Amino acid sequence: MSQKAQRRAYFISDRTGITSESLGEALLNQFDNIDFKRRTYPFIDTPEKARTLITHIQEEVEQDGIERALIFSSIVDSEVRALIRTCPAFHIDFYDTFIDALEAELHTEARRVVGMTHGLHDTERYDKRMEAVNFTLNHDDGISDKELKKADVILVGVSRSGKTPTCLYLALQYGIRAANYPLTPEDLESTDLPRMLKPYRDKLFGLTIDCERLQQIRSERRPDSSYASASTCNREVSVAEEIFHRHRIPFLSSTHKSVEELSASILQASGLKRRF
Amino acid sequence: MSQKAQRRAYFISDRTGITSESLGEALLNQFDNIDFKRRTYPFIDTPEKARTLITHIQEEVEQDGIERALIFSSIVDSEVRALIRTCPAFHIDFYDTFIDALEAELHTEARRVVGMTHGLHDTERYDKRMEAVNFTLNHDDGISDKELKKADVILVGVSRSGKTPTCLYLALQYGIRAANYPLTPEDLESTDLPRMLKPYRDKLFGLTIDCERLQQIRSERRPDSSYASASTCNREVSVAEEIFHRHRIPFLSSTHKSVEELSASILQASGLKRRF
Repeated sequence: MSQKAQRRAYFISDRTGITSESLGEALLNQFDNIDFKRRTYPFIDTPEKARTLITHIQEEVEQDGIERALIFSSIVDSEVRALIRTCPAFHIDFYDTFIDALEAELHTEARRVVGMTHGLHDTERYDKRMEAVNFTLNHDDGISDKELKKADVILVGVSRSGKTPTCLYLALQYGIRAANYPLTPEDLESTDLPRMLKPYRDKLFGLTIDCERLQQIRSERRPDSSYASASTCNREVSVAEEIFHRHRIPFLSSTHKSVEELSASILQASGLKRRF
Repeated sequence: MSQKAQRRAYFISDRTGITSESLGEALLNQFDNIDFKRRTYPFIDTPEKARTLITHIQEEVEQDGIERALIFSSIVDSEVRALIRTCPAFHIDFYDTFIDALEAELHTEARRVVGMTHGLHDTERYDKRMEAVNFTLNHDDGISDKELKKADVILVGVSRSGKTPTCLYLALQYGIRAANYPLTPEDLESTDLPRMLKPYRDKLFGLTIDCERLQQIRSERRPDSSYASASTCNREVSVAEEIFHRHRIPFLSSTHKSVEELSASILQASGLKRRF
């Protein structure tokens, strides 16, 4: 199928691999004329695991008969890191690259141990996250005034405009208590602000979406319904946007944005601070 | 209070800042004898925004009268990146550091444009994410056999062992359809596998938790209840672990693990592949 050059890319970490993966991806996304076969290997935290992995990588690359692999790694333990380095490949180790310069700049030595500073940090983080996730889950459908009061931010938009995943990402990534107010057909009969939201105008953030995309999403849920029709989608989106304009509610379109982008934008626009 | 040296750390990006933040954090966590004041600035994607930010950083650092700031950045646009570089600070730019070496290795030029390859990628990713998030949300309480069949993985554990946030993270980060089966007091009357789960033994993954920690979490929800008592927590956790052992269900303790760690471990142990 593809006429592109192929390369293998391995994301290796002694922790979750999420950071080396996302940075590696950001770099690889800059090369769209190459077809990368990606694999992530988290928790490579002993010399044994490193040796097994190296053998595996060498076998895969040999079988393919393509150019050497790319290895994006983030490994704190120096023995494991040195082992991974012995694998014939193009190496980028995020830890290795920066830690010496940082030690010099900070006039102090790095701990060079895997993991967080102490358990308490994790527990606090867990609690705040749980609190935010529970808050978001409990307010995803039907909202009470008492609860809107506790929200850090209230996402407002028509059904299927992307509120729920954005709320959940805000909760998981930043510990933000994000409530979610779906504009119902009744709310959209006028451009007044729904009564329940009036006391909380400063917490509101709107989400909108292209009508065609909304139609597509709604059609997957309820094909051939009035809910998914072009006329309903057009009308709902246009009234929702009028409400945002009229009441000066900041808003964004979710059409071409990932939940990461929406969440970071909302955090920035609303001046909210992450809770951990 | 603190006798530690203070430094300011800025995470700057022309996109969400999530990658430069998490990579910067991983590096800073290696220096626990310094008190870092952290700030993240996403979407710095024009020379104007860069200039405003530089002025702001300089003012903050001058006011503090402390050593120069650390700037962790990931900026694709070369003009913006060059501007940020002019800010008197210790700089680490993740893009800049690696892109030349990668171009040489791949015998091709980087696109040097911000963002994903094309819109479709985002749409597909969005759809898979939504599908997974909706799946998880719809199955967080009460599960039907029909739906367990569709799950990629089924997390099993006592109430409040960390199943819900882990399922949501699996859905958001990896597009995995994660269902969640809470072991009820009835299920815990024997060490049999709950009838509903029997056909899906290969998809099961257990979560356990230290009794003390469980007691603490449950007490916040329902103080002084039998549900939160030491004896209930001890009994439930010990029967749950017996079930895992007896039916050879792989399991992890959520006590000292973040949802990122739990999710990466589950993905690895179950051999599941991310869906985007």
